[in-house]
Amino acid sequence: MRKWRYVYIILLAIYFACSPTERKREQPVQNLVLVIHGGAGVITRGDMNAEQEQAHIEKLQEALTGGYAKLREGGSSLDAVQAAITILEDSPLFNAGKGAVFAANGKNELDAAIMDGKSGQAGAVAGVRHIKNPIILARLVMEKTPHVLLAGEGAEEFARSQGLILMPEEYFYTDYRWQQFLRAQEKEKNRTDSVAEKKMGTVGAVALDKYGNLAAGTSTGGMTYKKYNRIGDTPLIGAGTYADNYACAVSATGHGEFFIRGVVAYDIAARMEYLGLTVAEAVHEVIESKLTARGGTGGVIALDAIGNIAMDFNTSGMYRGFIRNDNAPQVWIYKE
Amino acid sequence: MRKWRYVYIILLAIYFACSPTERKREQPVQNLVLVIHGGAGVITRGDMNAEQEQAHIEKLQEALTGGYAKLREGGSSLDAVQAAITILEDSPLFNAGKGAVFAANGKNELDAAIMDGKSGQAGAVAGVRHIKNPIILARLVMEKTPHVLLAGEGAEEFARSQGLILMPEEYFYTDYRWQQFLRAQEKEKNRTDSVAEKKMGTVGAVALDKYGNLAAGTSTGGMTYKKYNRIGDTPLIGAGTYADNYACAVSATGHGEFFIRGVVAYDIAARMEYLGLTVAEAVHEVIESKLTARGGTGGVIALDAIGNIAMDFNTSGMYRGFIRNDNAPQVWIYKE
Repeated sequence: MRKWRYVYIILLAIYFACSPTERKREQPVQNLVLVIHGGAGVITRGDMNAEQEQAHIEKLQEALTGGYAKLREGGSSLDAVQAAITILEDSPLFNAGKGAVFAANGKNELDAAIMDGKSGQAGAVAGVRHIKNPIILARLVMEKTPHVLLAGEGAEEFARSQGLILMPEEYFYTDYRWQQFLRAQEKEKNRTDSVAEKKMGTVGAVALDKYGNLAAGTSTGGMTYKKYNRIGDTPLIGAGTYADNYACAVSATGHGEFFIRGVVAYDIAARMEYLGLTVAEAVHEVIESKLTARGGTGGVIALDAIGNIAMDFNTSGMYRGFIRNDNAPQVWIYKE
Repeated sequence: MRKWRYVYIILLAIYFACSPTERKREQPVQNLVLVIHGGAGVITRGDMNAEQEQAHIEKLQEALTGGYAKLREGGSSLDAVQAAITILEDSPLFNAGKGAVFAANGKNELDAAIMDGKSGQAGAVAGVRHIKNPIILARLVMEKTPHVLLAGEGAEEFARSQGLILMPEEYFYTDYRWQQFLRAQEKEKNRTDSVAEKKMGTVGAVALDKYGNLAAGTSTGGMTYKKYNRIGDTPLIGAGTYADNYACAVSATGHGEFFIRGVVAYDIAARMEYLGLTVAEAVHEVIESKLTARGGTGGVIALDAIGNIAMDFNTSGMYRGFIRNDNAPQVWIYKE
């Protein structure tokens, strides 16, 4: 009879190894969850005074509350992601929409993407200069075109065809980002490295709605003083943004090139699906192997279909927070 | 003592389950391999006369021979991929470089990407209009900038800074593609579906050099009558192009949006690494699950680090072929 014990153990092992997504689907879905980030980077307690800290915390809470309201009233995870990101885009505190960083040509060039974990549909825009809320345009690309990614003037022509109002370039100006641009320009002239200064703050959100559907979205102004119409990871599906009900929803922030080469957002989903990892394990492994081991910096937020949250980064700080099941929003800035 | 048998079996199972890439690396590398494609789509025997068929076959053979010469003389897989794709870009027969399709604005908008399986470095350009060989510019982005993806005028400004000669738009003109554009325009006016007509022929190559390193590259004019500066899968790392010595090199062709949403090229590599599939199994599974099951069309070529080749597609034809270890190049067009 002893050999039956081994057979039993092996069968149990096979069950746990092979069917994580199947088991997930059988669980009742009761969670409403929204997770957001406002960028990862060199953010230390010394950098900020109490007032600045408070302003960031309040805006993150507002975005969480505004996005979560959509989930409460029966809206989709896409609605919640869009609402939260719109609030962050409209704030001058974050590197997206108003308050975006300046490229080397002195312009604001904005990227955004959104993805629906239920249908696998996605929309994205890259290098737009007059769109108040790039996340809304990304969603229109997803819902009103057969395409996924539209760029530059073409994307703005599409925006006009959809009745979006194009903003003058001055709308995006903030003195803080302009000073950052001037410092980057000065460093460029002196050929000193200025990556740390470039801060790379991006905003993003992932959500789970009452129908059990996941969505992810990300929006950014990219890197300060970026050249040659550089496109980062944000608008690239699988790099900075990804959602699939059978794995997770992911939004990334950080040194975009590392996220592109490592196909970071999709790699998290793939490790969950193919290796049976939890969302926290997959996020941790990918940050270690695709970022830290290669010298890249940044972080991600991720959410699985039963409401497990992961927020992980290898920088000193990441603006982040979540709200779940009508509890109060929780928000953090620093590592500990 | 019987229980040791079980322990032994379990250890053996763990070894085979966990270390497929480790085992691969122990094999001696002796293969020189180059695989290319010239696009997948509705290509049936009735469509082509013998002369056209012969012209395509000869050009594919020329690209294979030209690229393989680099491998023979000790060049890298990147050199071979670049040489083969340059020959196809310079030919008016394929939808890349000269002979690219026209976008809805009557312009040729070219995309390309290249990736080094050894270092994980990558370069790509999207929406360039005056670059004779976008694959060469993609390689310059990889080697001369900290970025991965440059777009439009910015990418061309970078090309100029690298001493590349910009071509007049007329260079890319072919009567065949212009007639295709006019037919697409007519169909657009009449609102009839014209996806089949758009053909989506892209060119690509994957190679394995004597150092055991993989590389992948892809170049395209995109979809006929594409609008709004649409960017397809070709220049997106993980979607249409991917290479990693520990898994495989992949170049894709087809209805790009399906490849973007499915993160097709990286998914093939992920299934090899995480599920232990062979390159042929991974390619087959991904074409079934990410394309056929979702209504997408296209194909991929893939190559692993010990020289196993996969060329698979769900359309009636794909221009394709390979050359291995000094044997004569082999080329195919139709399914059987």
